[in-house]
Amino acid sequence: MRSSLSEAGIDYVELGGVQPNPRIELAYEGIEMVRDHQVDFILAVGGGSVIDSAKTIAAAADYDGDAWDLYNRSYHPETALPIGVILTIPAAGSEGSDSAVMNREENGIAYKRSFGAESVIPVFALLNPELTWTLPPNQTAAGIADIFTHVSERYFTNTTGTYIIDQFCEGIWRTLIRYAPIVYQDPENREAREQIMWAGTIAHNDFVGVGRDQDWASHQIEHELSALYDVAHGAGLATVLPAWMQYVYKHDLARFVRFATVVFGIENDPFDQERTALRGIYALKAFFSSLGLPTSMAELGGRDEDIDFLIENISYDSEGMLGSFVRLDPLAIREIYDLM
Amino acid sequence: MRSSLSEAGIDYVELGGVQPNPRIELAYEGIEMVRDHQVDFILAVGGGSVIDSAKTIAAAADYDGDAWDLYNRSYHPETALPIGVILTIPAAGSEGSDSAVMNREENGIAYKRSFGAESVIPVFALLNPELTWTLPPNQTAAGIADIFTHVSERYFTNTTGTYIIDQFCEGIWRTLIRYAPIVYQDPENREAREQIMWAGTIAHNDFVGVGRDQDWASHQIEHELSALYDVAHGAGLATVLPAWMQYVYKHDLARFVRFATVVFGIENDPFDQERTALRGIYALKAFFSSLGLPTSMAELGGRDEDIDFLIENISYDSEGMLGSFVRLDPLAIREIYDLM
Repeated sequence: MRSSLSEAGIDYVELGGVQPNPRIELAYEGIEMVRDHQVDFILAVGGGSVIDSAKTIAAAADYDGDAWDLYNRSYHPETALPIGVILTIPAAGSEGSDSAVMNREENGIAYKRSFGAESVIPVFALLNPELTWTLPPNQTAAGIADIFTHVSERYFTNTTGTYIIDQFCEGIWRTLIRYAPIVYQDPENREAREQIMWAGTIAHNDFVGVGRDQDWASHQIEHELSALYDVAHGAGLATVLPAWMQYVYKHDLARFVRFATVVFGIENDPFDQERTALRGIYALKAFFSSLGLPTSMAELGGRDEDIDFLIENISYDSEGMLGSFVRLDPLAIREIYDLM
Repeated sequence: MRSSLSEAGIDYVELGGVQPNPRIELAYEGIEMVRDHQVDFILAVGGGSVIDSAKTIAAAADYDGDAWDLYNRSYHPETALPIGVILTIPAAGSEGSDSAVMNREENGIAYKRSFGAESVIPVFALLNPELTWTLPPNQTAAGIADIFTHVSERYFTNTTGTYIIDQFCEGIWRTLIRYAPIVYQDPENREAREQIMWAGTIAHNDFVGVGRDQDWASHQIEHELSALYDVAHGAGLATVLPAWMQYVYKHDLARFVRFATVVFGIENDPFDQERTALRGIYALKAFFSSLGLPTSMAELGGRDEDIDFLIENISYDSEGMLGSFVRLDPLAIREIYDLM
């Protein structure tokens, strides 16, 4: 890649060292770099953490205040430097989205926060499945859980009457379920890598959000887990999502029955819709487990004594609640933790 | 709409009189108008014919030659005036596509030709389902056939390994099959109109063309029908598509079995795959018939004595053939006509 840039006569400076659960401090460094070298384009080569760091730098390079203002929502960037992406990890969908996530430590407490702005949607993204052939199984699996959840946060909401989008959601899920075991056995299977890569982009560029509410409760609960334990976001989601489902499924039993039957091919038990719905959730758990993902606090390496803190630290809305499909207060979230 | 423009202080001139199967002559008029009034933006209010006329005008306003050069592919517009759309007929998908179709008469022979260029993709399109409530049943039905075929031209090709896109295709089809009867009974059903409208855009903005070959044989065969008889494009497609399918299905029996079972819910007869495939094609014919669409030359109002001319007038490729899934020579197309 460096030689392609040089051959094309494009001057560049490099910023390495992005970690999973990316830190705002590296973005500060990047912002200085952009200013010092009058950078006019940012090429993000990597996965979500790299792209989100690029978005932070691109959005704040022109801003006099603290780049963290993006994340406490006191600054909204109407403009940003253009960003291009060479994707190496299908997971976050950041290559096609308007959002970014960043970590910051304050008084010894780790915060993970997000922002969104149209100005940071990448102007292009190159998706070459060959670049994902060497991705280790645990990262591949965590990516699949992340993609799965980007769809579920748009699917399990109170919006009705979006039949066409529902089907696109289900199509993405069936794609993951079909190709995850293949890629697990055969990491260089081009078709499988390709289909998962495309699923990752489509799942989060809001194509499946058209006309639908979104409920990011599982993501927000998870962010505290990966902030505290520095685990992969997708691993945290594999733990949170089925527990969240078990807590909320009665709110729209028909939708969870549909999820079980249409996505996991579970037979619809007409005499016991609840059992059908629960079997769908168990199938999802089994799917995550089959990829080596944790589906309990213990497997994730979480400690019961942290749960108070994890619940307290969540970024609640102005009413002190989380989510919209089912409104969750801290007590409800404790019940979700009990299900993990 | 006129009052909105006036209230917003936007000067405008109007060009009315676009017909179905739009004529290049009106586009010539529009090009003059653009030049006379230094128009810098074109707002297309209507369906495919209006949008395609706008695209022709937008692409050729700056061109010294004949606008028809777009359609005989001797001029490719790298730039064009920006176009906005207020959609009133879900059908052509032109609001999200890079292509346009236009008719021209030469020596008493009607030609219908197409062109495509990125520069003519509309910069915005407003899709308000209420604007389609008064659409008469025959136009609604023809639109549905057009949308159905935009998907099939991308689905029945020789590309394999695009599982995720296949499912998006099938999702669009199931949406049409589900909502067509509803909108037929209840033209002001918002949900049904909405879902069909969105299907129309997604079917042709190339979202379901990603990574796939395309085979536009049915469209090209049909263009001659609507050029000669001035019938609705969708009505012509309802006649051509099932006949084309009957001619080609053996080339990829498994795919037609999948179409029958997954799209029309036909039981898979494991002892007779061919019967399963054919039942899918018959189900499609029955679906079109149920909407009052013609599915035979006789119903379309076509005459057997025109068939030679219809076949001869097709825009064949450099090898004198049509299509890619199955390569069709004029004799093959005659067999397709025998199936209409």
